Amino acid sequence: MTLLNEQYRLAARPVGMPKPSDWSYTEEPAPQPEEGEFLVELEYLSLDPAMRSWMNAGRSYVPPVEIGEVMRAQGIARVLESRHPKFQAGDTVSGAFGVQRYAVSDGRGVLPVDTSLAPAPVQLGTLGISGITAYFGLLDIGRPEPGQTVVVSAAGGSVGTVAGQIAKIKGCRTIGIAGGAEKCRLLVEELGFDAAIDYKAGDLRGQLREHAPDGVDVFFDNVGGPVLEAVLARLARGARIVISGAVSQYNATERTPGPANYMNLLVSRASMTGFVVFDYAPRYGEALKELGSWLASGQLKSREHVVEGGIKAFPEALLKLFAGENTGKLVLAL
Amino acid sequence: MTLLNEQYRLAARPVGMPKPSDWSYTEEPAPQPEEGEFLVELEYLSLDPAMRSWMNAGRSYVPPVEIGEVMRAQGIARVLESRHPKFQAGDTVSGAFGVQRYAVSDGRGVLPVDTSLAPAPVQLGTLGISGITAYFGLLDIGRPEPGQTVVVSAAGGSVGTVAGQIAKIKGCRTIGIAGGAEKCRLLVEELGFDAAIDYKAGDLRGQLREHAPDGVDVFFDNVGGPVLEAVLARLARGARIVISGAVSQYNATERTPGPANYMNLLVSRASMTGFVVFDYAPRYGEALKELGSWLASGQLKSREHVVEGGIKAFPEALLKLFAGENTGKLVLAL
Repeated sequence: MTLLNEQYRLAARPVGMPKPSDWSYTEEPAPQPEEGEFLVELEYLSLDPAMRSWMNAGRSYVPPVEIGEVMRAQGIARVLESRHPKFQAGDTVSGAFGVQRYAVSDGRGVLPVDTSLAPAPVQLGTLGISGITAYFGLLDIGRPEPGQTVVVSAAGGSVGTVAGQIAKIKGCRTIGIAGGAEKCRLLVEELGFDAAIDYKAGDLRGQLREHAPDGVDVFFDNVGGPVLEAVLARLARGARIVISGAVSQYNATERTPGPANYMNLLVSRASMTGFVVFDYAPRYGEALKELGSWLASGQLKSREHVVEGGIKAFPEALLKLFAGENTGKLVLAL
Repeated sequence: MTLLNEQYRLAARPVGMPKPSDWSYTEEPAPQPEEGEFLVELEYLSLDPAMRSWMNAGRSYVPPVEIGEVMRAQGIARVLESRHPKFQAGDTVSGAFGVQRYAVSDGRGVLPVDTSLAPAPVQLGTLGISGITAYFGLLDIGRPEPGQTVVVSAAGGSVGTVAGQIAKIKGCRTIGIAGGAEKCRLLVEELGFDAAIDYKAGDLRGQLREHAPDGVDVFFDNVGGPVLEAVLARLARGARIVISGAVSQYNATERTPGPANYMNLLVSRASMTGFVVFDYAPRYGEALKELGSWLASGQLKSREHVVEGGIKAFPEALLKLFAGENTGKLVLAL
């Protein structure tokens, strides 16, 4: 019996928000594993804002997805058939298998997943790249100290929910910036943030002044744009800005201005530092061990937003990220 | 005999480049020192781009000069009369005495100057705040390693000439960005830079590509604006940007855009850090000792641009900084 693969391939480089015509849906027979390879069936796909940047041509921290290529995506999959010594049929694994139903892999970048520890969507989120990004970005780059004020933007997202909770675990006053009253309520009431600012409610600067009267010591930024400028205007001396993303800019169709008040870095003796989580690959185990123990103890709560609907739901599901419709990790169930 | 003091006071907050009407010239009897004070006669005034920022209202790293106040300036002066135990008539001292002929001080922030070691203009420049800024900014924030590529903007200025030469002393490939062929010639032929880029000649990015083929490891930025963006587009992985100033913006009359491509900090895992030299006051001695020994050995060359003409020449002399007319430290001789 030949398995039928379903895929989304990049058809065009999007201008602004990805449109249906930027994708091509293809069906073809699932590939056969060669010696040293294995075949997987995807069960869950991770949907991430960074995917938008992979769709652009040009220099970034990873090569762009080429036109005609299956869209890159991290996923959790079950091994169906293996000719690889380290993987057996029935294993559950995570890897960058792409937006498709079946994939063949040589095992590079593929890790075993123990779903008895946490369900697959958690393994893609809090115990996946999102959680690891929050962990190293906040602790290694942000270096918060107990009692300091930490602000997280896109605080309702997969990285932000974890970064803010880690800041709380480390004894910081933690303020989330998110869109909408309901997300803000969740951050404070369910995830333990000290305060949440609804940027859609306006007067972001006034709200920051109120909630961070002594200034911001660490800003974990996933957003960029006016949110970054508002926090730059409110830095404490010696502040650290962690540049984790700039989701406000990923769909921009015009050249977006940079932070006009970046000279506040001088006034506040502050730093703004970019990082890419993949550089921490040798230390992922360290992060996962600690994240796992916080999850087990209940100090850290994981949030997932699982969209049902299979491969065909992918183009629309991805847009939820940019509409801010998800809370926590956005995952597509296949 | 009463001494006649001459002063420049801030008359209005400038819009754009300071105009004559932004100053008021005043004459009044020189003040008399009280117990615990001393009277000085100014001999040289330090002219610095940062003075422009002190003329603006609002938050910065030092309080603004108020309207009607004598303009703040660092200077070298001779003690005429002392009722202070630590200072004697005849001493040469440096301090923030302001743009005036005579000043009274209680000794705070005043340091003795030994002009037998180096002439007064050098003590205001390479052995003053400019040299100390270059020293700590480059070494503490930039942390260049031998063989790395260091780029310095406003490289012909008082801070830039020193920062670039320190980078060379530390074994780096050093590239200066300056305005005009003559300044560029001087940087390479007289101060030992490996290359100099004339930003006025156009194609800054192409010139950077040519001279920094492996990317820029450390950028010591005094300029901001398009120069900062050009270097952001050419960062090596793990690069450090030192924000020492933004002279391109000090006279802007409209909101100046920030660096549009700041997300290259993420792509390059780079940092951008502001600093204020005054924070290093407890370590000035360390910098001065090393700068002095490099000067003595000839490894470091000091450049001064001394304008004659006394207090009355101040408003026009200051503008030379923004026209880029000076090479090295701009000093007004009284």
